[in-house]
Amino acid sequence: MATLADIGVAAALNILSAIIFFVAFAILRLQPFNDRVYFPKWYIKGLRSSPTHSGAFVSRFVNLDHQSYVRFLNWMPAALQMPEPELIEHAGLDSAVYLRIYLIGLKIFIPIAFLALTVLVPVNVTNSTLKLANVTYSDIDTLSISNIPLGSPRFSAHIVMAYVFTFWTCYVLLKEYEVVASMRLHFLSSERRRPDQFTVLVRNVPPDPDESISELVEHFFLVNHPDHYLTHQVVYNANKLASLVKEKEKAQNWLDYYELKYSRNQSRRPIMKTGFLGCWGEKVDAIDHQKSEIERLSKEIAEEREMVTNDSKYIMPVAFVSFKTRWGAAVCAQTQQSRNPTIWLTEWAPEPCDVYWQNLAIPYVSLTVRRLIIAVAFFFLTFFFMIPIAFVQSLANIEGIENSAPFLKPIIELKFIKSVIQGFLPGIALELFLIFLPAILMMMSKVEGFISLSSLERRAASGYYLFNFVNVFLGSIITGTAFEQLHTFVNQSANDIPKTIGVAIPMKATFFITYIMVDGWAGIAGEILRLKPLIIFHLKNFFLVKTEKDRDDAMDSGSLGFNTGEPQIQFYFLLGLVYAVVTPILLPFIIVFFALAYVVFRHQIINVYNQEYESAAAFWPAVHGRIVTALVISQLLLMGLLSTKQAAQSTPFLIVLPVLTIWFHRFCKGRYEPAFAKYPLQEAMMKDTLEKAREPNFNLKAYLQSAYIHPVFKASEDGDDDDLILKGEPEMVLVPTKRQSRRNTPLPSKISGGSSPSLPEVIQDPQQP
Amino acid sequence: MATLADIGVAAALNILSAIIFFVAFAILRLQPFNDRVYFPKWYIKGLRSSPTHSGAFVSRFVNLDHQSYVRFLNWMPAALQMPEPELIEHAGLDSAVYLRIYLIGLKIFIPIAFLALTVLVPVNVTNSTLKLANVTYSDIDTLSISNIPLGSPRFSAHIVMAYVFTFWTCYVLLKEYEVVASMRLHFLSSERRRPDQFTVLVRNVPPDPDESISELVEHFFLVNHPDHYLTHQVVYNANKLASLVKEKEKAQNWLDYYELKYSRNQSRRPIMKTGFLGCWGEKVDAIDHQKSEIERLSKEIAEEREMVTNDSKYIMPVAFVSFKTRWGAAVCAQTQQSRNPTIWLTEWAPEPCDVYWQNLAIPYVSLTVRRLIIAVAFFFLTFFFMIPIAFVQSLANIEGIENSAPFLKPIIELKFIKSVIQGFLPGIALELFLIFLPAILMMMSKVEGFISLSSLERRAASGYYLFNFVNVFLGSIITGTAFEQLHTFVNQSANDIPKTIGVAIPMKATFFITYIMVDGWAGIAGEILRLKPLIIFHLKNFFLVKTEKDRDDAMDSGSLGFNTGEPQIQFYFLLGLVYAVVTPILLPFIIVFFALAYVVFRHQIINVYNQEYESAAAFWPAVHGRIVTALVISQLLLMGLLSTKQAAQSTPFLIVLPVLTIWFHRFCKGRYEPAFAKYPLQEAMMKDTLEKAREPNFNLKAYLQSAYIHPVFKASEDGDDDDLILKGEPEMVLVPTKRQSRRNTPLPSKISGGSSPSLPEVIQDPQQP
Repeated sequence: MATLADIGVAAALNILSAIIFFVAFAILRLQPFNDRVYFPKWYIKGLRSSPTHSGAFVSRFVNLDHQSYVRFLNWMPAALQMPEPELIEHAGLDSAVYLRIYLIGLKIFIPIAFLALTVLVPVNVTNSTLKLANVTYSDIDTLSISNIPLGSPRFSAHIVMAYVFTFWTCYVLLKEYEVVASMRLHFLSSERRRPDQFTVLVRNVPPDPDESISELVEHFFLVNHPDHYLTHQVVYNANKLASLVKEKEKAQNWLDYYELKYSRNQSRRPIMKTGFLGCWGEKVDAIDHQKSEIERLSKEIAEEREMVTNDSKYIMPVAFVSFKTRWGAAVCAQTQQSRNPTIWLTEWAPEPCDVYWQNLAIPYVSLTVRRLIIAVAFFFLTFFFMIPIAFVQSLANIEGIENSAPFLKPIIELKFIKSVIQGFLPGIALELFLIFLPAILMMMSKVEGFISLSSLERRAASGYYLFNFVNVFLGSIITGTAFEQLHTFVNQSANDIPKTIGVAIPMKATFFITYIMVDGWAGIAGEILRLKPLIIFHLKNFFLVKTEKDRDDAMDSGSLGFNTGEPQIQFYFLLGLVYAVVTPILLPFIIVFFALAYVVFRHQIINVYNQEYESAAAFWPAVHGRIVTALVISQLLLMGLLSTKQAAQSTPFLIVLPVLTIWFHRFCKGRYEPAFAKYPLQEAMMKDTLEKAREPNFNLKAYLQSAYIHPVFKASEDGDDDDLILKGEPEMVLVPTKRQSRRNTPLPSKISGGSSPSLPEVIQDPQQP
Repeated sequence: MATLADIGVAAALNILSAIIFFVAFAILRLQPFNDRVYFPKWYIKGLRSSPTHSGAFVSRFVNLDHQSYVRFLNWMPAALQMPEPELIEHAGLDSAVYLRIYLIGLKIFIPIAFLALTVLVPVNVTNSTLKLANVTYSDIDTLSISNIPLGSPRFSAHIVMAYVFTFWTCYVLLKEYEVVASMRLHFLSSERRRPDQFTVLVRNVPPDPDESISELVEHFFLVNHPDHYLTHQVVYNANKLASLVKEKEKAQNWLDYYELKYSRNQSRRPIMKTGFLGCWGEKVDAIDHQKSEIERLSKEIAEEREMVTNDSKYIMPVAFVSFKTRWGAAVCAQTQQSRNPTIWLTEWAPEPCDVYWQNLAIPYVSLTVRRLIIAVAFFFLTFFFMIPIAFVQSLANIEGIENSAPFLKPIIELKFIKSVIQGFLPGIALELFLIFLPAILMMMSKVEGFISLSSLERRAASGYYLFNFVNVFLGSIITGTAFEQLHTFVNQSANDIPKTIGVAIPMKATFFITYIMVDGWAGIAGEILRLKPLIIFHLKNFFLVKTEKDRDDAMDSGSLGFNTGEPQIQFYFLLGLVYAVVTPILLPFIIVFFALAYVVFRHQIINVYNQEYESAAAFWPAVHGRIVTALVISQLLLMGLLSTKQAAQSTPFLIVLPVLTIWFHRFCKGRYEPAFAKYPLQEAMMKDTLEKAREPNFNLKAYLQSAYIHPVFKASEDGDDDDLILKGEPEMVLVPTKRQSRRNTPLPSKISGGSSPSLPEVIQDPQQP
């Protein structure tokens, strides 16, 4: 068991590494040649241009101003200065609300820590149970609930505190839900016109032998929303096209690389092998080969493109239907269209960048089957992933290492090294395993068939949280070998499970403190350094970049990564709430994490990350729900713990807490969740009226025309021969037949031409609002 | 343990009592003076008039036709003859679909019973485990799974059958859900125009200092549904008025009684005492006293009525808002109106007769608090109600009675009496307790704040089912004293709970067989006799009836009683599914119940019951869900049972079943449940278009004007002095100000008069569709 000294060593180490990261960051960020790694957001917004163009040659790459190195932490106040409305404007609502999660952590835990340290720690420390019991214990345990004798009346202090903490947490959550909900509604009704406000995604369009999908959609909505339907866009199955375009881009990169190489060394033309990974095969002239490759791919792309747009087989039974008013869209998104509730499914269209195109065409029955399969797969992933973790953890203790590698014994027995191993290794073992996980979970969410990137990330986040809970939290507390744990739980009574876990909790406080320091402190400090993007950028910059545009492409701004970031925060909420009553000394560590993470991520959001999509904080109900879950878990575990302390008479007092908390959750769900799923008609109407008054002649149809085009059709601004794609568009866009008259008759005559089921339609009536 | 002979005696007794009930019914129903007890439905529909008016004097009361007595079961084929569409027309969709539940029982259990009896019984009976084990066992046990030796490969037969039964049940459920959903949609879109198709109930109208509720509602919907809003009706708090009217009716009844008494014996005027229950107090002339009472009440009613309609305090923050089209109503009911999702709550208006007026004005926060309180109360009701049951059951066995009343010993020991006690008593003890329950559960649902009778009944039904499951099913299987049972479960592992129950199941087969016979066979046969309504009708007929109208009032048709009937059926589903694999011999008893109940209730629905409301089979998702629950329970218990039979290798095979079943449930939920909660726009639009084409000039506003008036305002067709209520109506109905112009301007000027917030509005524009 780690002593206070061990913790001290670990803390020193982690603080040191954090400081090293910060200093490295301070130095690197000031170098102009790193500017695009540490400030990509500003480049993307067009507010900053390469500093490499002006000034002396050396100062293009290295910052020679000594002054700027002294204030190596001055990015921190800078990060905190931007006010929230400006932040929303700058980085989107998602990012701004994401930062609020860290703030909630501070709001919840600072008062709790203050109370716990002033009330509970004195109550705990003025006993001598552990000293008398003659068991091995660390100094930290004397500050924890373990130090209270069995059946002591002092437990009432802990129960009262459990109530206070619960009410405080719920109060903060309630206020925050209210604020976020109103921020979301305000954002949605804010000035900026967005295509998704007018558009509804229609899925599972039923097949019709007589009409094409496009015709069918148009007729259906002309009939059922006659006053509101404006236009629609069908969705093409462009997955193959997208992969061809990607392949061409790769070939283009190679070509750039070889050309750059040739220009540097004109003596001989670069050679490449055509085989696997360029390791074997015929030797050819690299530049010629890549050029012919690009030519071949361009031709294929053109052909595929022709096919996609002309062959009706490539049209998926999905459409983006746009309405004349927000009101019309809100109505269509919230209502059931057809008698059969599995066809003509409507929902708010995700923001154009948020659409996950591959999943749009999955039919209803397939969706439910996929859910089942993924649920079963997730169960196995969660419970069998534990085998390797437990294996590594069993190695990563002093005795384990000594046993498996006896020759290391003299080194390990050194006091300092021993502390390092005990403080660092278990955390690192876990960390290593968790690196692989998000990708797997993301893939599983994709199989499940979610249709927007934001919902994919939300789903992956909830999977990650569950996984963390079972494997990191439970797995660390009751260190059993893998599947054993599930087996124990199934064979234990509902009463005994909280007891088993509750009893082990105080003993694991030191482990979690080191975990917080490694994962939370050093990890977050490492985040700001952006080591991976830094290296990749400079590699690309050296090998590929020819033009300024190439340099823009080499820039990797990254994004928040809700699917990994949020579960991590949630894990700290869980730890904080569980240990608040049991071992309050853990709380300051968590507060440091929240504060550090808040500053770091605020800086990254302002300067680095470029959010791919904007879901308008749609993740908040999940965040709220998971904090409440953590609260309920903490209450149950406290109940279990106290019932083993011969304080079973406390159970009736404690059982009230989860009941009230669950009720609180249901209340919040009813009160605030609709704001995240629906769009109130009153808001829509208000906004519509306002807009009509302000811009009576705005051509909405033109605005919405091509909002939802598969990104592969948009990827034509490269300036290369890709623009045959752009040229292609107007061609297949002809639906010239009496558009005007058709809108007035509910059931128009069929469109005659074969090529008419088409992508965006030409603008015909600019008067149309 | 009851032997086969005991079962035989019990069966004979119950069949005998059933036959007695049927014969009594056959005799009673043919007597003309009982006609209104056994055929009230036809009177209410106006298709039958009192036979007492024609023919000889005696034959007015007694049926002298010998022929008709011979065919004493001929009501049965008659009950089965009416085809389903006609039944829906005659008794409503609720009743017709309710009958389908019994049919499902037959559809599920007849094939299952056939398979189980031909496959499983031979497998079970050809062992001699019980004989060899030298334990006490009944003949029935040799037919059950108990007779299979531990670890026998024969269990695979049971596992295969569990699969077959599950798939068959799910198949039947799926088909049935499909049929009922389409019946519902067809019913909703059927020719008949109903006010609830156009009307939405708006609750939690926020208070406004400047406008009355009525104005506020009108303005809100004129602004937010400008093209669709038609009219609205505010709701008055008429609870006190209703109770006054009721009191007056009672006084009227007493007056009738005394006048009748006086007319029969003119020698002296009837005398009554004014004190409590007429037992003490001052003696007064009864007729004069009641007359003055009625006068006083009439005056009070008039005053209260004046107050209700003129004082704005009596207007509740609730309104029924009607739309011009079904489309408009469907849109409003399915969307969120306001930014704050707890105000302006819209939902489909229940059918006018279905509204539960008292609960309309409960605000949102109060609702959630009530839910919490009732949930806690229900928990205590469920787990502490067991104390008396267990007490009575412990008395109601041979040894118990002999101990508590030793003098009865010689009688009890007689073989026949012993069988009676063992066969009958435990069932009856349960039955007696269950009589009090539905009223309590109904009251609890009312406190919870549901706003329609149908949802009240659905809620009470689910409570009753849970109660039945815990107390009757589990309580009978693991006969523990009351709260002990919960205690055992909490202290048992998730693995052991199904084991404990599973093991006890085969042993309780005989108990449940007697229970089915008492509750199912004799109980259902007793239902048709309508003993209570019969007696009450004749008492009223003798003491109160003066006119034909009075006789109509004395008639009590009753209704289906979903809150008690459906949980009873569900209990049989549970028994059937649980015992199908374990003790198949129980199935024929259940099939007899379903068949008998089907015929009896079909007869009652055709001839007797008059449904108060029509919810268009809104209960089906609950019915489906509970059958699925029963299926999952049966699978878990089988798993538990088999794992104690040293057939633990079967667990992996069996665990698949509940997973698949739950998935099936989720699939059905997504596929069919929306049909019961939403109204597809396509349907609405179709129906609207059709209707507009057929009746272009129909005055919808006049039709909807007074559809949703509190019943107390409608109770004026009595022809008594109540019609001052009717006269009052047109007075307070004046909203004469520029109605026409107001509809065109979104925000009309305020209504000036104080008396304007008014009940139904006068019809002004008959051209309005």
